[in-house]
Amino acid sequence: MLIRVLGSAAGGGFPQWNCGCANCRSVRAGELRATARSQECVAVSSDGDHWFLLNCSPEIRQQIESFPPLHPRGPRHSPISGILVTNGDLDHCLGLLSLRESHPLVIYATDRLRRGFTDGNVLYRTLNRFPGQVTWRSLKLGREEELADVDGRPAGLLVEAVAVPGKLPIHLEGGATPDPEDSVGFRIREPSTGRILAYLSGVGAVTEPVRRSLEDADCVFFDGTFWSSDELPRLGLGTKRAEEMAHLPIGGPEGSLARLDGLAARRRIFIHLNNTNPLLRDDSPERARVEAAGWEVARDGMEVRI
Amino acid sequence: MLIRVLGSAAGGGFPQWNCGCANCRSVRAGELRATARSQECVAVSSDGDHWFLLNCSPEIRQQIESFPPLHPRGPRHSPISGILVTNGDLDHCLGLLSLRESHPLVIYATDRLRRGFTDGNVLYRTLNRFPGQVTWRSLKLGREEELADVDGRPAGLLVEAVAVPGKLPIHLEGGATPDPEDSVGFRIREPSTGRILAYLSGVGAVTEPVRRSLEDADCVFFDGTFWSSDELPRLGLGTKRAEEMAHLPIGGPEGSLARLDGLAARRRIFIHLNNTNPLLRDDSPERARVEAAGWEVARDGMEVRI
Repeated sequence: MLIRVLGSAAGGGFPQWNCGCANCRSVRAGELRATARSQECVAVSSDGDHWFLLNCSPEIRQQIESFPPLHPRGPRHSPISGILVTNGDLDHCLGLLSLRESHPLVIYATDRLRRGFTDGNVLYRTLNRFPGQVTWRSLKLGREEELADVDGRPAGLLVEAVAVPGKLPIHLEGGATPDPEDSVGFRIREPSTGRILAYLSGVGAVTEPVRRSLEDADCVFFDGTFWSSDELPRLGLGTKRAEEMAHLPIGGPEGSLARLDGLAARRRIFIHLNNTNPLLRDDSPERARVEAAGWEVARDGMEVRI
Repeated sequence: MLIRVLGSAAGGGFPQWNCGCANCRSVRAGELRATARSQECVAVSSDGDHWFLLNCSPEIRQQIESFPPLHPRGPRHSPISGILVTNGDLDHCLGLLSLRESHPLVIYATDRLRRGFTDGNVLYRTLNRFPGQVTWRSLKLGREEELADVDGRPAGLLVEAVAVPGKLPIHLEGGATPDPEDSVGFRIREPSTGRILAYLSGVGAVTEPVRRSLEDADCVFFDGTFWSSDELPRLGLGTKRAEEMAHLPIGGPEGSLARLDGLAARRRIFIHLNNTNPLLRDDSPERARVEAAGWEVARDGMEVRI
């Protein structure tokens, strides 16, 4: 299985347009051992010819151009066979509206997620110009589905949606009642090799289902939004703690690094990094700690083969 | 007046994600005398400190980062004082939803345009997290308005919206009845110098109001979407003629190059270039023709001072 990180930052990217925190200021000035990152999006393929996107960031156009295997091979064509969406946050969904050039799209999502994106969203009409412009394939928690292109040709991969503690996207807050189908991670399995990718980029807590979904994975991508609970309040950049935004911090005795100690996966990678996260600095003590524990930090352009 | 082109391509950009036409294929392969272009967005300023965006493309994050005068000068700050929108096409509006990091935004648009973007658009709730997150300032056809920041401090520029023949954005087609306020161009005037920028990036026909708006301008940006009427059908990439998409082609006896012959503006620039347009090729005969007529072709990063 081929895994290519197209974008590795949390919503807003790194640097963020209106942020002058130490990380953002210094990376712009070239004074930081760090590289800029676009918003989270990952491409996965079994054969190298048919690709599936995990999430669809607002920067999708630039991200597709950054990776030649995603370029068209005909006058109107795309090697992107389908798109899987983890939750309704705009940094995961807005890019769908950028893929509006009358191209048939296949989107895998829970029914909740589909309704949250399509109901009451006049902009979605841009993806409804002809019958079949979007084919939604419904993901049910705990049920494995075959990934296939728009014509139903199997791509050699299976996906299972895993419930993760999350929250409704900001634009749906105060509307719908929260539901376990609002936020999911993916277990993507390649039957020909038995390899498993566990992709959980937004996780509020390590529950039993979360832990089980990671145990036999060969590669784990995990929520790397914040290093500490009070990262934003301490910098004067927000009032909410990490957990209130449904992101388990990495550091601390109850953080994900401690909670996920002992995972067998050969590759363990933090992704969805907020611009304030000290892990973004290649020479930070926090980076040294996660690397000493066998974890990596995702960057745009990173490739993993399992 | 300072004018910086952040993006110069039509919707989809150049190259376009699902397009393998000769232009897109060759620019990706580095075999074309042409440069890639992001989707149309232009920044304008009188003092170099306070900037106004003309349109807000899906690629706005990358475009802001590309131009240091738009970077924040404090922990939470932006030199972007306001955003002016010409029409409801997603390549002009979608980027507004990327500026959702709880930052106060000022948007200048006609009432029609505001309603088209906010009504029935659940995603817009992301810009309504606190009172005053978005300040809409209403543009009326033919009436000059002062450009000012969120606190009302004047920026030394005035804007007048000019009705241009256009069409409803795709996602509103079949809904509202078309209205002259659906598509506008801008005349931006700097009273301290008397300089005038005429910015008409989407124009279906040269009407009398269109012609008048250009006559005394020092700099003209004009619709450069298509070179010829049948550009898409001839390449097998679409069925519609340029005029059916409300874009007057540049070439031909009735095209904009002929119709706008004799304009006094010192700088005359085609912008909003579709990926199929031969003007994108630096060495095309079409490029030579417009340059011989005193016109330029916008590119990302271009700067104009008038």
